[in-house]
Amino acid sequence: MSQYFDPRYASLEAYVPGEQPRDRAYIKLNTNESPYPPAPSVCKALEGGVIEDLRLYSDPACRRLKEKLAAHYHVDTDQVFLTNGSDDILNFAFMAYGHLGAAFADITYGFYSVFAALHGVDATIIPLKEDFTLDYLDYLGLNKLIVIANPNAPTGIPISFNRIEQIVKANPEGVVVVDEAYVDFGAFSCYSLIDKYDNLLVTRTYSKSRSMAGARLGYAFGSKKIIEDLEKLRYSTNPYNVNSMTLKLGEATIDEDDYYMENCRQIMLTRYDTMQALRELGFDVLPSNANFLFAKSPTIGGGALYAKLRENGILVRHFNKPRISDYLRITIGTKEQMETFISAIKQIHQEVDT
Amino acid sequence: MSQYFDPRYASLEAYVPGEQPRDRAYIKLNTNESPYPPAPSVCKALEGGVIEDLRLYSDPACRRLKEKLAAHYHVDTDQVFLTNGSDDILNFAFMAYGHLGAAFADITYGFYSVFAALHGVDATIIPLKEDFTLDYLDYLGLNKLIVIANPNAPTGIPISFNRIEQIVKANPEGVVVVDEAYVDFGAFSCYSLIDKYDNLLVTRTYSKSRSMAGARLGYAFGSKKIIEDLEKLRYSTNPYNVNSMTLKLGEATIDEDDYYMENCRQIMLTRYDTMQALRELGFDVLPSNANFLFAKSPTIGGGALYAKLRENGILVRHFNKPRISDYLRITIGTKEQMETFISAIKQIHQEVDT
Repeated sequence: MSQYFDPRYASLEAYVPGEQPRDRAYIKLNTNESPYPPAPSVCKALEGGVIEDLRLYSDPACRRLKEKLAAHYHVDTDQVFLTNGSDDILNFAFMAYGHLGAAFADITYGFYSVFAALHGVDATIIPLKEDFTLDYLDYLGLNKLIVIANPNAPTGIPISFNRIEQIVKANPEGVVVVDEAYVDFGAFSCYSLIDKYDNLLVTRTYSKSRSMAGARLGYAFGSKKIIEDLEKLRYSTNPYNVNSMTLKLGEATIDEDDYYMENCRQIMLTRYDTMQALRELGFDVLPSNANFLFAKSPTIGGGALYAKLRENGILVRHFNKPRISDYLRITIGTKEQMETFISAIKQIHQEVDT
Repeated sequence: MSQYFDPRYASLEAYVPGEQPRDRAYIKLNTNESPYPPAPSVCKALEGGVIEDLRLYSDPACRRLKEKLAAHYHVDTDQVFLTNGSDDILNFAFMAYGHLGAAFADITYGFYSVFAALHGVDATIIPLKEDFTLDYLDYLGLNKLIVIANPNAPTGIPISFNRIEQIVKANPEGVVVVDEAYVDFGAFSCYSLIDKYDNLLVTRTYSKSRSMAGARLGYAFGSKKIIEDLEKLRYSTNPYNVNSMTLKLGEATIDEDDYYMENCRQIMLTRYDTMQALRELGFDVLPSNANFLFAKSPTIGGGALYAKLRENGILVRHFNKPRISDYLRITIGTKEQMETFISAIKQIHQEVDT
């Protein structure tokens, strides 16, 4: 830290992204990426001059992609917001509404608390229940910036449409952000509520179900006024935040919905098989509606099992935090990758037992 | 604006990017883009699996590009910072050092005052001299966050290495940001001073001389501690801020330095010819070391001339602001584009004269 750095950031703890080691080839089940590439037509979408045209700025209004998303999801274009990955949406939401104070779960996406600290937002941390479900009654009448991941990460547990609506309805002076990064893997989206409630913002990403984590594309749905707020902040920080290539790929992706939904179905099937296999081995596996499982070994601590898997060339995510330090978050890869994973788990447990 | 929006942003005026109209084809001389495409090898750099691999997150450490830039510019990798366009660097600088107060010119890149307003930074606006040059004596002993564009925009006027060094030296308790977006068109970079001074940050962009405005890539050089500050903020907002495609293109660009320097030389030649032609027509043209000219018609007001050019299918930039409302900022395009521009200027002036 330099002597010039604003002291309010001195104790800020930045987000720690999942590791990307390069010492060997790993089966990468640690950052919830899709095991499948973008659709073949998407892989060709930059042919025909897109790179040559990079000399020109990208469209700051992101007009074509906004129109395609609006048509696909049956919303208005001025109810759509686009960013360089969905973390940017969350960042803008904390800037715009953090003065209300924020509220989110103790066990959820780790970036919410980073954004709160970054922007000096007073955050109320609400513990999940013993079984890691969220009690919606805890979120009524807060009238703060409420952030809920649906399904939640790293647990994978969803919350119902009706309960989301109860929360939105019961916080008329607050803003409810529903982070639907993993919604395509089995949860029910609440974005249709944006016409009914002015205080709802639903964030989405191309990083998971759309196989485009490396292209950086986040989008959100909200009332026209909420989107106006966020656009004002976007135009005051980085009006050309989404690059031309990603805009093009984002448009092409919408035309291939069947391909991506089929990938999601396959991941849900593989998730079921992996969950069954882990439960047969005595694991505690939370019921997941996301593209990962959150699971606890009957005999080996989370940190130790993470390290053993890493030695075996398999990366998963371990959070050394209260309540969840014995769990691992395991991204669902291909069927073959998960069979290799289960074999490694069996072997590690046998070694420990003997 | 929604009823929930933080009232401190109520009077915030967002940055207004150059227009991108789609009603007809324009000769686009309004956003300082390069008239030349990226190098042929750069246009091929995404072949061979880069798009297929987009399912994976981009490298948050941007290791390979940082190493290539560091080697090319003979600095250490921990003296390099990378962002999604260079506006992001400026945004982080205002977050990190804005508590010191800021100081910048009255006529300069319009985003500095937006960042100051966004982050509630107390900004001292220092008028340029009558001839639009910057008096370096005005910047000594301020010990604030000082932001200087070299060459300046929209004037194109540079400031010498020695005077930059005087400013950096005379503000030991402040941070000096030198925005070198246009440095490759004839100004002298001061980045070699980062080894000598801890309080210097030099920002650069691929958007101008590197023909990659649509790919979004900014970079900065600074002391290790300054870069540490900025990395902390980057990891607290968007660790995957630069997408995988742009990283790849950025790496390929470094191998084609001769191509881009030749483009810069051509632009400087065309700039000279355009300046001469405008002066022959009685224009007041500031001496520019950037890829644009700032010029005033002897007979037609800035707003009127902008509108006339637009009718003729030529876009330039007009700033309706004190001191400069009679000037136009004209990006240097190809030789042919500038000949068309000069013809249009002649015709418009003839029409007005008769």
